[in-house]
Amino acid sequence: MCVAAIDIGGTKTMVGLVEKDGNIITKCTFSTILNSYHEHFSFCLSILDRLLEEHHLCKSALKGIGINVPGMVDKTHSVLEKAVFAGWTNVPVKEYFVKQSSLENVHIENDVNACAIGELKFGYKTTYQNFIWLTISTGVGGAVVCDGKLIPGFNSLAGEFGHLKVEFDYPNTCPCGQLGCLEAHGSGTAITNYTKELAEDDMDFKKAFELNDVSVDAKGCAKLAFLGNKQAINIYEKAAVYLGRGLSYGINILNPEAIILGGGVASSLELLKPTIIKVLNQNVISSLLPVDIKQTKLGYDAALLGAAALCL
Amino acid sequence: MCVAAIDIGGTKTMVGLVEKDGNIITKCTFSTILNSYHEHFSFCLSILDRLLEEHHLCKSALKGIGINVPGMVDKTHSVLEKAVFAGWTNVPVKEYFVKQSSLENVHIENDVNACAIGELKFGYKTTYQNFIWLTISTGVGGAVVCDGKLIPGFNSLAGEFGHLKVEFDYPNTCPCGQLGCLEAHGSGTAITNYTKELAEDDMDFKKAFELNDVSVDAKGCAKLAFLGNKQAINIYEKAAVYLGRGLSYGINILNPEAIILGGGVASSLELLKPTIIKVLNQNVISSLLPVDIKQTKLGYDAALLGAAALCL
Repeated sequence: MCVAAIDIGGTKTMVGLVEKDGNIITKCTFSTILNSYHEHFSFCLSILDRLLEEHHLCKSALKGIGINVPGMVDKTHSVLEKAVFAGWTNVPVKEYFVKQSSLENVHIENDVNACAIGELKFGYKTTYQNFIWLTISTGVGGAVVCDGKLIPGFNSLAGEFGHLKVEFDYPNTCPCGQLGCLEAHGSGTAITNYTKELAEDDMDFKKAFELNDVSVDAKGCAKLAFLGNKQAINIYEKAAVYLGRGLSYGINILNPEAIILGGGVASSLELLKPTIIKVLNQNVISSLLPVDIKQTKLGYDAALLGAAALCL
Repeated sequence: MCVAAIDIGGTKTMVGLVEKDGNIITKCTFSTILNSYHEHFSFCLSILDRLLEEHHLCKSALKGIGINVPGMVDKTHSVLEKAVFAGWTNVPVKEYFVKQSSLENVHIENDVNACAIGELKFGYKTTYQNFIWLTISTGVGGAVVCDGKLIPGFNSLAGEFGHLKVEFDYPNTCPCGQLGCLEAHGSGTAITNYTKELAEDDMDFKKAFELNDVSVDAKGCAKLAFLGNKQAINIYEKAAVYLGRGLSYGINILNPEAIILGGGVASSLELLKPTIIKVLNQNVISSLLPVDIKQTKLGYDAALLGAAALCL
């Protein structure tokens, strides 16, 4: 018995078969077809059929389908209300997959919420029951778990950590249109922007990327920082100040025992952590500290395992 | 059948008898005896005996005792871990009252949490199941309710809205020792400070208090503001900017349907509300707005009714 996990991202989609202990039997990644969700969903199901076939499994082996979507999901966990990246609105995701797959056990969830649910099911499990799950990638997204349960909020939209205001004097404009959001100052995109700006102004910094054969972006900057490049380290420290500020609000409000980080930037946690802790010490009332700061136990498969966890 | 409600504040304590529908049969207010909690608790119980006697009720009419404390309560809701105002630490409140009253149904809770529980039981009840309860008084305290339940946090310390950082450039020092806290910029104490500072610098403003026979503090400033005094209005608008900032963090993180305000300053909500809404529009991602902003339905008895709600 296994479940189908579908993680629909803004750029890529992953379809996998996952066992109830979190073991990924197989997975397949492909580009998200943005111009037609019908076409994309249909393609996801064809991939699912292929994966089942390759593993000599019939459809009856599937316990259900869990689907992550990168946007706002309605209260009934049936409809994708809005996916900004694709311009999709009011997409009846559950209805489509129930009808086309003939399975009843179909669940959809916002991608970051699903990651938090996956962490509870397969990751830190019993270790942490009160945590903030933060994804730091192209953007910054969050989910809140209290007493082992996801806090959905009134419209299932809780956890908008990316839009906490963290810079008032020199705010960057966020894709949401507002100023000074954490997403505009502490995301992977922001780190890439800091990196590119500095590389333009500073030839030595630019050369360091060429010498080490790494790209001028957040990932390349992390590599230089791990090699001891002080400017690269400074860039990560700058982002960490903003991440620390954003997290300080979450900790003061929620009194979590842990912060669990996912997304590409989370793999550079060691570069961020000392500064995050320093900022938390300045901005969180002392009775709520310390708080554990960890990288997700689910690694790069966090979102796929999150999707699987939805129907387990 | 009724319950005993004891609301222990930093300055005053209130003891009351409350029916299960929230009707307050009687109540009595007196100064909190700070130098000895034993003495204070004993006095509370003597007042309780007197109230019962005055209403010809025997102790068997009591269903239980609910006790609010102005500090941190442990996970088992038995011990007051720390009450900064009095220097009380690790006070076995429940044990004391169970022993001395011979009642088993004794519950203690942090005062703001109790207010939120009281709101659920007697105030907005079914109207709101997802809200932030914020008390704006000497300090600023908060509690979080999601899906009709209080969010305690890992150590029952969630809701520290008073220590969210809302001013980075010209931060005031907060009693907690940190800089720029909401409590240091948007509390009743902060409003009183703004009022006194301006009255010292501006003789016309000072005279307005004398002419209207009101005190130079937050309450007096509110009276002048309601009379149209522009400087007094500006002071409330200044505090509202900070309250709006603080609440914006709560709304982005929790996606509540309402903010419910209690405490002395909440009675000046109409002075604060337009600016709070303006600040929320700038700082909360639009999909999470609007949010209702209401004064508590429990009025000045919020804390007493909160205490009663604990054992109902």
